Amino acid sequence: MKILESAIKKIKKPNSKMYEEAKERLRNQARPAGSLGILEDVGARLAGIFNTLDVKLENRQVVTCAGDHGICEEGVSLFPSDVTRQMVYNFVNGGASINVLAKHANAKVAVADLGVNWDFEPELPIFHKKIGKGTANFAKGPAMTREQAVQSVEAGIEIVDRLLEKRPLHIIGTGDMGIGNTTPSTAIIAAFSKIPVKKLTGRGTGIDDEALKNKIRVIESALDKNKPDANDPIDVLAKVGGFEIGGLAGIVIGAAKAGIPVVCDGLISTAGALIACKIARGAKPYLFASHNSVEIGHRFMLEHLGLTPLLNLEFRLGEGTGAAVAFELLDIATRVLCEIKTFEEVAIIDAQKNA
Amino acid sequence: MKILESAIKKIKKPNSKMYEEAKERLRNQARPAGSLGILEDVGARLAGIFNTLDVKLENRQVVTCAGDHGICEEGVSLFPSDVTRQMVYNFVNGGASINVLAKHANAKVAVADLGVNWDFEPELPIFHKKIGKGTANFAKGPAMTREQAVQSVEAGIEIVDRLLEKRPLHIIGTGDMGIGNTTPSTAIIAAFSKIPVKKLTGRGTGIDDEALKNKIRVIESALDKNKPDANDPIDVLAKVGGFEIGGLAGIVIGAAKAGIPVVCDGLISTAGALIACKIARGAKPYLFASHNSVEIGHRFMLEHLGLTPLLNLEFRLGEGTGAAVAFELLDIATRVLCEIKTFEEVAIIDAQKNA
Repeated sequence: MKILESAIKKIKKPNSKMYEEAKERLRNQARPAGSLGILEDVGARLAGIFNTLDVKLENRQVVTCAGDHGICEEGVSLFPSDVTRQMVYNFVNGGASINVLAKHANAKVAVADLGVNWDFEPELPIFHKKIGKGTANFAKGPAMTREQAVQSVEAGIEIVDRLLEKRPLHIIGTGDMGIGNTTPSTAIIAAFSKIPVKKLTGRGTGIDDEALKNKIRVIESALDKNKPDANDPIDVLAKVGGFEIGGLAGIVIGAAKAGIPVVCDGLISTAGALIACKIARGAKPYLFASHNSVEIGHRFMLEHLGLTPLLNLEFRLGEGTGAAVAFELLDIATRVLCEIKTFEEVAIIDAQKNA
Repeated sequence: MKILESAIKKIKKPNSKMYEEAKERLRNQARPAGSLGILEDVGARLAGIFNTLDVKLENRQVVTCAGDHGICEEGVSLFPSDVTRQMVYNFVNGGASINVLAKHANAKVAVADLGVNWDFEPELPIFHKKIGKGTANFAKGPAMTREQAVQSVEAGIEIVDRLLEKRPLHIIGTGDMGIGNTTPSTAIIAAFSKIPVKKLTGRGTGIDDEALKNKIRVIESALDKNKPDANDPIDVLAKVGGFEIGGLAGIVIGAAKAGIPVVCDGLISTAGALIACKIARGAKPYLFASHNSVEIGHRFMLEHLGLTPLLNLEFRLGEGTGAAVAFELLDIATRVLCEIKTFEEVAIIDAQKNA
């Protein structure tokens, strides 16, 4: 608990004066006020975080956290759990979707095992942070112990710390891999929002109507059985969460501690972000939503967090793919703020040319 | 009329076999089918256009067409017409929004005067294609003659021809500058769709409630007076259009003629694209929608064209800003198609590593 408590205490507020200065500059640019929409607020928020109007998002990092889920026993996913392990190797080999999208965004990908049901070779270049070989089936009892929940969050914080020992980072994106993990993520937003599970549950990797009905029943019954306490985010994570979801919460807290903006991907990453912001309210100003997932529960998470997604590309992949694409838009937001001339600057250029 | 007729005849269909091959590859990639949403179809369409699975959008060009509007006499805009001229100079000086966003997208910006109410110096590095010094006030009669409408479209085609003499292009984005030009653009979609003007009319650069009511009245009365023939796109352009809107239609036709994908920006660019596709149905497969503008009429244009916008950033600026941002997403779509490994390719890599 020490790592977590210490991290929470270290989170500082972004500079609100610089945020206001950025807003002022945006208002004075030679274009109709507000005409660059949601990129304007993104730019101003980044200015507040970095305490400058000239933000440079140079070193970019995606962290993809993997874990397995006992709940798969209940037939909630189209794919077998073994795919989690396979995809970890695929990430390491560089052929997965996140590798391609991160490369395009000039970002590096770090892969972390928080709880895959497989013994990876110790030399495999991933973060070895296994809390357990898959969670317990939370249809039958808690997914993990309270201690494991804290450990998973602290593992995420430590991953950010280790990454920062290697190089400074200017932006972090979160991503997930874990067959079955839309089920705990949906249970988490249901626990916090009290919105009926039926309204929150999507098809994950593509289950049919019958399997969807089953998934809803499984989540409803698990919430009923485990009774996660919405006022205790660690309890929610322990009862109906996942190891990689805890890790993802830790990434958000670790980034906020280090003063680095963090972009959450889809349903699972945002479930982690939700837990992070419940644990550490100070993390929220560092958090950006990348996209609006096809997974229906995601929009309720974003509403709960008060975040506007930058993209609506009908992604439903995870891995950090939406976050990587959003890096480009955050970068554009920094250029909009810094490089578009104000009316005053345009007039000065004109005067110099005519002098 | 010769340039236009010849261009229409030269438009070829994209390769549908390559499109299908791309779809097949996307389906076989090591991820849930369809999980990269609308980027998948974008990638497949680009493959069809370029007849390869490895599309490289290297040389990128934004063309920003400017013109003035007699309709401004009716008080439809917040800004004075003189701003059109000022912004042309701002584009040339490189300090405008489109310069910043195009630079970020590694694209060049070409500026074209189709009908600004100002005599630009002949040495100013823009395309000098002035059809007239602003359109006539279409509240009182047609905005331009039929001959001028054709000339404006042909000017757009010629601009693409000239650009291609300098270097090959792989993607073109359209953009506009013209105080008052949301009014003709709204009139154009009203003429084609027969949807009530009230449902289609937005606030442009930011007019208030009273001015909005006036703008709606002006458009309704102008449509009533001029009776543009929805089956004759040149008639619509002549009666209630604008010189830069004709130019933007020409850019789309010119791009299609050259087999180059073209990304339309917001309300005004899409008004041009609408006219282009009505004149030359073959242009449609080359057309991509960049974003969903705040201007309410835009969504009806995109529906009319059957296009899905890639971005929803609440932009309402024009200049080509949305198109420039969308270049990045089109580029990502090409990498998704080409670089994400199929299940088969992943298996081959595994086999090689274990050999």
